[in-house]
Amino acid sequence: MRMVDLIAKKRDGEELTTEEINFIIEGYTKDEIPDYQVSALAMAIYFKDMTERERADLTMAIVNSGDTIDLSAIEGVKVDKHSTGGVGDTTTLVLAPLVAALDIPVAKMSGRGLGHTGGTIDKLEAIAGFHVEIDKEEFVQLVNKDKIAVIGQSGNLTPADKKLYALRDVTATVDSIPLIASSIMSKKIAAGSDAIVLDVKTGAGAFMKTVEDAKELAHAMVSIGNNVGRKTMAVISDMSQPLGFAIGNALEVKEAIDTLQGKGPKDLEELCLALGRQMVYLANKASSLEEAEEMLKEVIHNGKALQKFKDFITNQGGDASVVDHPEKLPQAAYLIEVPALESGVVAEIVADEIGTAAMLLGAGRATKESTIDLAVGLMLNKKVGDPVKAGESLVTIHSNRENVKEVIQMIYENIRIADHAEPPVLIYEIVTE
Amino acid sequence: MRMVDLIAKKRDGEELTTEEINFIIEGYTKDEIPDYQVSALAMAIYFKDMTERERADLTMAIVNSGDTIDLSAIEGVKVDKHSTGGVGDTTTLVLAPLVAALDIPVAKMSGRGLGHTGGTIDKLEAIAGFHVEIDKEEFVQLVNKDKIAVIGQSGNLTPADKKLYALRDVTATVDSIPLIASSIMSKKIAAGSDAIVLDVKTGAGAFMKTVEDAKELAHAMVSIGNNVGRKTMAVISDMSQPLGFAIGNALEVKEAIDTLQGKGPKDLEELCLALGRQMVYLANKASSLEEAEEMLKEVIHNGKALQKFKDFITNQGGDASVVDHPEKLPQAAYLIEVPALESGVVAEIVADEIGTAAMLLGAGRATKESTIDLAVGLMLNKKVGDPVKAGESLVTIHSNRENVKEVIQMIYENIRIADHAEPPVLIYEIVTE
Repeated sequence: MRMVDLIAKKRDGEELTTEEINFIIEGYTKDEIPDYQVSALAMAIYFKDMTERERADLTMAIVNSGDTIDLSAIEGVKVDKHSTGGVGDTTTLVLAPLVAALDIPVAKMSGRGLGHTGGTIDKLEAIAGFHVEIDKEEFVQLVNKDKIAVIGQSGNLTPADKKLYALRDVTATVDSIPLIASSIMSKKIAAGSDAIVLDVKTGAGAFMKTVEDAKELAHAMVSIGNNVGRKTMAVISDMSQPLGFAIGNALEVKEAIDTLQGKGPKDLEELCLALGRQMVYLANKASSLEEAEEMLKEVIHNGKALQKFKDFITNQGGDASVVDHPEKLPQAAYLIEVPALESGVVAEIVADEIGTAAMLLGAGRATKESTIDLAVGLMLNKKVGDPVKAGESLVTIHSNRENVKEVIQMIYENIRIADHAEPPVLIYEIVTE
Repeated sequence: MRMVDLIAKKRDGEELTTEEINFIIEGYTKDEIPDYQVSALAMAIYFKDMTERERADLTMAIVNSGDTIDLSAIEGVKVDKHSTGGVGDTTTLVLAPLVAALDIPVAKMSGRGLGHTGGTIDKLEAIAGFHVEIDKEEFVQLVNKDKIAVIGQSGNLTPADKKLYALRDVTATVDSIPLIASSIMSKKIAAGSDAIVLDVKTGAGAFMKTVEDAKELAHAMVSIGNNVGRKTMAVISDMSQPLGFAIGNALEVKEAIDTLQGKGPKDLEELCLALGRQMVYLANKASSLEEAEEMLKEVIHNGKALQKFKDFITNQGGDASVVDHPEKLPQAAYLIEVPALESGVVAEIVADEIGTAAMLLGAGRATKESTIDLAVGLMLNKKVGDPVKAGESLVTIHSNRENVKEVIQMIYENIRIADHAEPPVLIYEIVTE
């Protein structure tokens, strides 16, 4: 088998066999196939796409390029949730205790990563004493006992994806549905879950700018999951404005606590229920999505979800009293209001730019070397569709430095007030196949 | 300027600017832009093509990546001829003295290369004493005096093309009209000629298998030449069967001598006149192609073309008596006839396979390290459309080894005899713009 012939085959729109796809990914992982052949193939895939079978094979070839996590010691159906990434996305912090409260095992492996705010682990570390440096045995034990635990990422998972992604990033081959879908799904599958719920974001703050692109990606990923034996569903949700009110690490922990008590932002609650009911359904805990949603609402109302969050914190060394006393979370030195300059209705809050403003305060990492300030961030006081009077606060800046002129500037540039505006659609579509 | 953005631009079907194309080729030549980005760009060009302006810019960027030959010391309009390559193509050996006999300067820089037979230099070295190791001054002096000289390739011409071609060869991006056309034209332009006549072959023995593809390539190259100020014309000619009768180095020298005397194979003569009249016309020696053709026929009939060949040989140290005594050329030890196994009409002589048969005898190089046997090769006794009787010789094998079973086998497999067959069209189109 020669790589050049396989590139030509894909270039000519033909379907690559399982054997051929394995040859490519194995060879590339072992550095036997050079970057310049793989980038040419990626560009051919960009133009000629891949069939469902090819996408599933590519995903499994990437999974098999490295270690995989074995969660078989954990009882029950392990359901993982993945978001394609947005601004102020507090869903994981809410969903983990929420579904665990329904006896669904949440065995979460998480990273830190770059972005507007930290990753799930960074956020949880806003709770004094909380740590994820636990060993594999303790992790399994905790999940079996209390249905919830988080561990830091370890092992050499999907090395082919790391190489491929770095290459695509510099060869203009990132925007390819089969390549994006196989990249995301390979990581989820290698992490060992039995079923996967996907939150595919669309809008200014998302990778997929249009609903059509988001739908295509969602269908591609759901199809891969189901084709390789992992039950998969997806929600296509809005990321034109940030989700909820909080953008920041401690701020989002506080928002998660509110939401677990049924007092959170409406959009965050609605999305958590939409994702949560799919998780409950895929875990075989409910016979319909409607029943699943009722079960979720019940554990919010009866306090079981909040208690589960407390147990989770305690189990991993954290001070669970923050749940009842969120003022114990890291607090920023300065609270600075950003008043509306005119009256009207909020018509636009450009998600990615507002996210960048939070990052400038220190809430997220611009590079791997950046240090995160867990206390800082932004609290939105208005969302799109809300009426506002001149002088009312649009945003509260939580900062550890006094001069935040450039942040205020960015906020003004990215919140638009108009005469009329409607709140955006939050959930565009539920994708089950 | 970032290479990844330029790849994305081409991927999206946009036109690259002159500055952007120069950035790419300069960066690649200096190893500042890596192979993996250039291969992705090449694949994007494969799918999205290039405009006439981009093709001309790419060609000149490749020309400027290395040395260029300055032929300004040579008087007159220097016209170069280039063939896209075929089997038994003796046209250069005929055309060089033929147009020189009309006072058109032929300042030929030539190489050896791989193929079914040797390059022009290899063929000329079948003449005892002939050598191309002359210095630049002597070369210019010879052309000014006698209008004809050949020198071996020197200098670092079109290094970007060498890198690009090697990369395209292993990334399935060879078959791209803008990339093929700029590769060929950059080499011709760097070699310093004022005008260019192209022989674009089509058929089994050619790179372009269909007439449509050959036309597209011819138009692309003629357009590039004219856009960068080098008058260019092209002929699209048949290479479904070998050209002429001879496939081999000394055998082709003999065939060239015959043709210069008006006694050569009809198809070779016809093609030489078609290409020659364009050369004469582009050199401003005739006011029409018809007039140019009459002038060429005249120097064949009055012996001037043959005399020019003798002078050329003598000037470069060769024994010109071979022209009148071709038996002095290297002779193979064995002449083996391949008789027809049935009566009928020759319907097919598969050019590339017959060329490979000649190479197996030692007439050409399979790798750079191969040694050529100048004496060996094949003489076709029949061409497509010729009637043949069982037992009549189809081909005479000139070999220096007695056992040529596999060559005979290949010949039988690739010459088809049928009840009826017509000779193929030799010249499909004359391309002038």
